[in-house]
Amino acid sequence: MEKARVEPFTFVSHALAAASATLVLVWCIHFRGGLAYEATDKSLIFNIHPVVMVIGFIIMGGEAIMSYRSLPLRKDAKKRIHLILHAIALALGAFGIHAAFKFHNESGIDNLYSLHSWVGLGTISLYGLQWIIGFFTFFYPGAADTVKRSAIRWHALFGIFVFILAVGNAQLGFLEKLTFLERTGFDKYGSEALLVNFTALVVILLGASVVISTLAPSNIEETKKSSAI
Amino acid sequence: MEKARVEPFTFVSHALAAASATLVLVWCIHFRGGLAYEATDKSLIFNIHPVVMVIGFIIMGGEAIMSYRSLPLRKDAKKRIHLILHAIALALGAFGIHAAFKFHNESGIDNLYSLHSWVGLGTISLYGLQWIIGFFTFFYPGAADTVKRSAIRWHALFGIFVFILAVGNAQLGFLEKLTFLERTGFDKYGSEALLVNFTALVVILLGASVVISTLAPSNIEETKKSSAI
Repeated sequence: MEKARVEPFTFVSHALAAASATLVLVWCIHFRGGLAYEATDKSLIFNIHPVVMVIGFIIMGGEAIMSYRSLPLRKDAKKRIHLILHAIALALGAFGIHAAFKFHNESGIDNLYSLHSWVGLGTISLYGLQWIIGFFTFFYPGAADTVKRSAIRWHALFGIFVFILAVGNAQLGFLEKLTFLERTGFDKYGSEALLVNFTALVVILLGASVVISTLAPSNIEETKKSSAI
Repeated sequence: MEKARVEPFTFVSHALAAASATLVLVWCIHFRGGLAYEATDKSLIFNIHPVVMVIGFIIMGGEAIMSYRSLPLRKDAKKRIHLILHAIALALGAFGIHAAFKFHNESGIDNLYSLHSWVGLGTISLYGLQWIIGFFTFFYPGAADTVKRSAIRWHALFGIFVFILAVGNAQLGFLEKLTFLERTGFDKYGSEALLVNFTALVVILLGASVVISTLAPSNIEETKKSSAI
């Protein structure tokens, strides 16, 4: 019965994830000309970055977080799905960051001076660290049950912190890109600017919804039982 | 005894608050020429904005959040301090936003096109709403005990959400200001740019520390007892 209290937030998260994915694709394909890994128009290489970071890193990471609590499966199966989805998010996040560097390098743009890049590299590093520590503590070889029981709270708290960093850093990215575009006669109040700002707000709501779905009451009940670890 | 588990995070938060305040003052006074409400050099009016938002809104808001759990006082006194500190943070936040509008208006800069402004107005509106609902529910006239008991979790959760929005929006502000400065021959890797990025990171750590201090175990124990409301 407890499970039912999580589900509304999980469904809202899926809907907001679908909306975020649609919005970022509309932006990068309709307004920005599409995506390409090799192109003479280097901006098409850049476009990989927001699409992959939103869909591959934030949405996939959010689904990975929620999967552990919301799927109607055995604990062991949920644990495998949780770590596999996070591994996919991590790999896609790394690829999305690579696309940003590739765009910079081929366009003669400086790397790693902006807060977005600093927080971004910090976030993916912490994400990787969290994955590795989680793998060894909870999956293989797995720590002693008493260690697991005290580690699960910190695993959840630190995981939520890294996810919030990712959502916040997406905001920095949207703002930075629009500010760059506004240097060259871009309409500050035009439909593209409004679309990007709305996309950013939907990503905030997605982040809030994912976090609420992990904090909903049944989680606290579950983590008190050793069966949760 | 439970209280002791919160204190380390509270002390870390105070230290990070002092560091954030120092860094934003060094930036706006040493690098940006100081603060003024009336000036022919309009950038001095702008400088009020980051200083007041960091010190008056985020630091004061963080102290307001922590005061309710960390002060060694009776519940009633803590409640008054909690709501008064939040009222001060709200008023200073509104003044800091006014300074940004004043700077824009006197410099012929557009208002309310950026994600920073959208999220900022959203944040202070939600902050005000949270204060009003909290006042009526928990202070005067105060809801029935059963209502209070179910509302306290949502009050804490929504309060933390708004505080995270404020911390995240400060990041947008730091990035936006640096991106504007970089339009005019500003050194992307210079000491001022590094100082501002480091200030932003310290503000993230402050935010994380304040949130952890509200989530530390004793809180959960307390909210289960009716004495906490």
